[in-house]
Amino acid sequence: MENVSVFGAGSWGTALASLLGQNGHNVTLWCRRADQARAINVTGENPNYLRGHPISSNVTATNKIEEAVRSPLWVIALPTQAIRGFLTDVAQMTSVRPYICNVAKGIEIKSSSTVSGIVRDVMGDVSYSVLSGPSHAEEVIQDLPTAVVVASLNCEVAERWQAMFSRPNFRVYTSSDVMGVEIGGAVKNVIAIAAGIAKAMGLGDNALAALVSRGLAEIMRLGAKMGANPLTLAGLAGVGDLVVTCFSAHSRNLRLGLAIGKGKSMAEAISELGQVAEGAYTVKALKEMGRKVCEELPIVDAVYDMLYNDLAPEEALNTLLLRDLKPELPPAMQWM
Amino acid sequence: MENVSVFGAGSWGTALASLLGQNGHNVTLWCRRADQARAINVTGENPNYLRGHPISSNVTATNKIEEAVRSPLWVIALPTQAIRGFLTDVAQMTSVRPYICNVAKGIEIKSSSTVSGIVRDVMGDVSYSVLSGPSHAEEVIQDLPTAVVVASLNCEVAERWQAMFSRPNFRVYTSSDVMGVEIGGAVKNVIAIAAGIAKAMGLGDNALAALVSRGLAEIMRLGAKMGANPLTLAGLAGVGDLVVTCFSAHSRNLRLGLAIGKGKSMAEAISELGQVAEGAYTVKALKEMGRKVCEELPIVDAVYDMLYNDLAPEEALNTLLLRDLKPELPPAMQWM
Repeated sequence: MENVSVFGAGSWGTALASLLGQNGHNVTLWCRRADQARAINVTGENPNYLRGHPISSNVTATNKIEEAVRSPLWVIALPTQAIRGFLTDVAQMTSVRPYICNVAKGIEIKSSSTVSGIVRDVMGDVSYSVLSGPSHAEEVIQDLPTAVVVASLNCEVAERWQAMFSRPNFRVYTSSDVMGVEIGGAVKNVIAIAAGIAKAMGLGDNALAALVSRGLAEIMRLGAKMGANPLTLAGLAGVGDLVVTCFSAHSRNLRLGLAIGKGKSMAEAISELGQVAEGAYTVKALKEMGRKVCEELPIVDAVYDMLYNDLAPEEALNTLLLRDLKPELPPAMQWM
Repeated sequence: MENVSVFGAGSWGTALASLLGQNGHNVTLWCRRADQARAINVTGENPNYLRGHPISSNVTATNKIEEAVRSPLWVIALPTQAIRGFLTDVAQMTSVRPYICNVAKGIEIKSSSTVSGIVRDVMGDVSYSVLSGPSHAEEVIQDLPTAVVVASLNCEVAERWQAMFSRPNFRVYTSSDVMGVEIGGAVKNVIAIAAGIAKAMGLGDNALAALVSRGLAEIMRLGAKMGANPLTLAGLAGVGDLVVTCFSAHSRNLRLGLAIGKGKSMAEAISELGQVAEGAYTVKALKEMGRKVCEELPIVDAVYDMLYNDLAPEEALNTLLLRDLKPELPPAMQWM
């Protein structure tokens, strides 16, 4: 049994801490606030997330970062935009070279970088893994069947995390494709926005499915240029996560798309939703990535222009439909 | 402008005949029944399908097969199970070596063969292409935006069909992966059954998404063994068609799965649905294909056993969850 710290007590961090505890590990769950840590230790539940679901008694919450950083195994369950600041702070506190498993999805806005890039920037050549896939925390803590993928460049490390997390109803597949799993987490948000726009325009089911497949195709091309295996994007971290969004009517990204597709401006859409959907950031990062590796991303561009350049949805559609026709797969992907 | 015959005046054959007519081609639409052909020619509509949608005046319907076979270009829009008999009949009538474009999806039950195999059996080495993708005929005839893929081993032939079918709102991508596009048409039906079962069992969204991704993964592995490019299955003919099914509540395959997931027997489910869903045949063919190429297909096996061996859904789930964990992608797919 291992000593492991989970940083971040949102719903995903809490569910994974409890799962690791159920597997017999000695888990430290780091929360930013002392009162939250106290409440978890006293009541055995997280008062802010997943209420009514008891947390494994092998989990001890703390807000003392100097305690949490002593574990040799770190699970990072913080918001992506907060990770760089957090790691910069803790890197000075400890000489431990931890094994890091990131479970946050998304891309850092200011650097257009995935979390592996942030970790490398701040901590240098430390052991990095990423766990992703279709996994609502509310279902994981209820022990409903779930499958995820954990990727590391070192297959023994991936297998170590696999062994730690695996439970009968929590199946952890391994992968060596860190970049693919990380980009996969970005796919669904942007495609969900595009799907919402097509839906609001009344373009029909054929168009919706075409947007999803061709959106996926361009993110596979982008991923391939960045060293990812495009097949990873057809896996749990890509298509799997996308399907969860398709089946769920509650996606903020879908709702942002619906508002834009009805002709609302970004400002109007945000005031309607009460917040910005993650995909609105991701589309910027993907566009920037595409520019860097010289990969054309027509659907990403169209979504970007509708969100940020007031391009009318009808005009965006026309631009897409007037593009030259190409083979479905680019030459580099035809030899598989 | 070309002379082209469309065999089969169901909704898909009718929509594609009209589309080819709109593109200025001289189209013969072959119908089995004389009264149907007459009605189409007199009213400019198909009385049985897509009523209220006028057919291009460049389309002439006929029930005289000896007229229709004179065209050098044949679009086959017949039910898959009827194609072998049809081709056997017409092959004796003409010395024309036609360019064939099949637009039917599915696998022949008795031979476990895709349509390209049927065509090769009956007509030998004739030019074969296949057109597939997310394309409800009702939307195509209304000129709603649609994207499909046409595959041929000969890229010039694929481009010829692409040029014939393409319209501003009907985007035709090309592919050289005939097997991939054909197997893609089978994917969605079996996965839709599995999704329906998971839904009826109340397993949650995570499990549903896991079934879809892992189902897709095993069909990619099967496809790869049969010479398909697994990326084709992540394209319009695979994931694209799957998404249409996900977004549609009317799928017969999904409804079959819902009935089985509630513990009904196959006989009860069929009497409830009034007919057998296509995926119930396809799962047999996929199982047979898997056996032939020695590829393990756990989800296909589970669906098969629930449909035909009275395996209880809970037991099938347990069997899946107890399987050994493997890398997400098999070694042969990790080098992309």
